[in-house]
Amino acid sequence: MTLEYNAQGLIPAIIQDDETGAVLMLGYMNAETLKTTREIGQAVFWSRSRQQVWHKGATSGDYLEVRSIRQDCEGRSLLVRVKMLGGAVCHTGAKTCYFTDVEPAG
Amino acid sequence: MTLEYNAQGLIPAIIQDDETGAVLMLGYMNAETLKTTREIGQAVFWSRSRQQVWHKGATSGDYLEVRSIRQDCEGRSLLVRVKMLGGAVCHTGAKTCYFTDVEPAG
Repeated sequence: MTLEYNAQGLIPAIIQDDETGAVLMLGYMNAETLKTTREIGQAVFWSRSRQQVWHKGATSGDYLEVRSIRQDCEGRSLLVRVKMLGGAVCHTGAKTCYFTDVEPAG
Repeated sequence: MTLEYNAQGLIPAIIQDDETGAVLMLGYMNAETLKTTREIGQAVFWSRSRQQVWHKGATSGDYLEVRSIRQDCEGRSLLVRVKMLGGAVCHTGAKTCYFTDVEPAG
C-alpha cells in the first residue's frame, strides 16, 4: 500500500527504541527524507519549525540507526524502530521526549 | 506546559500497549476527546475520516483502558499507554496497526 502524506506532504513517524520498546519521539518525514532515511540507515526528518531537512544527530551526535520501518494499516503513519547511537533523543537531554504527564487542564 | 493543537484543533496520540510496549496505533484527539478520555479512562479519539467523536471499542468491543498519558517536550503529541480490553486494535483484526513493512517505493 502506498503512503498517504498530508497536505504539507508529511507523514508522522513514531520513533521507538528497538531494544527497550520505549517510545522516544514523534517526527515527520516527507517522501524525500524517508528515501534518505532508507538510503543512509539513519532517521532523517523534515523539521516543521525550521522548514528544512533535519538529519537527527547531525549537530548533537545522537543519531538514530534505523532497524525497521513499518506503516500502519492505512498508510498514514510510520513506526520506525531505531538503535540510539547517542544517550538522548530529546533536545532537553532526556532519553525520550515523553517525560511529562499531561495535566488535567491540558 | 500546555498542549499545542494543530490548525484542525487536533493532537496526535501514540497508543502503546502498557504491558508489552508494542505501539498499536496513532490516533488524533482534540481538547474535548482528550478530556473525555481522562474522565472515562478509555481512549476517545476524533475520527478525521468520519469527522466525529470516536470512542474506540464502542462498536468492536476493543476498548482501550488508559494507564497513563504523557506529552512530548514541546506539547505537540501524546503518548497514551493502554491496556487492551479486546484482542485487537486494528480494524483488520490485527493486534497492532503496524504489521506492514514500508516498501522501497513507499
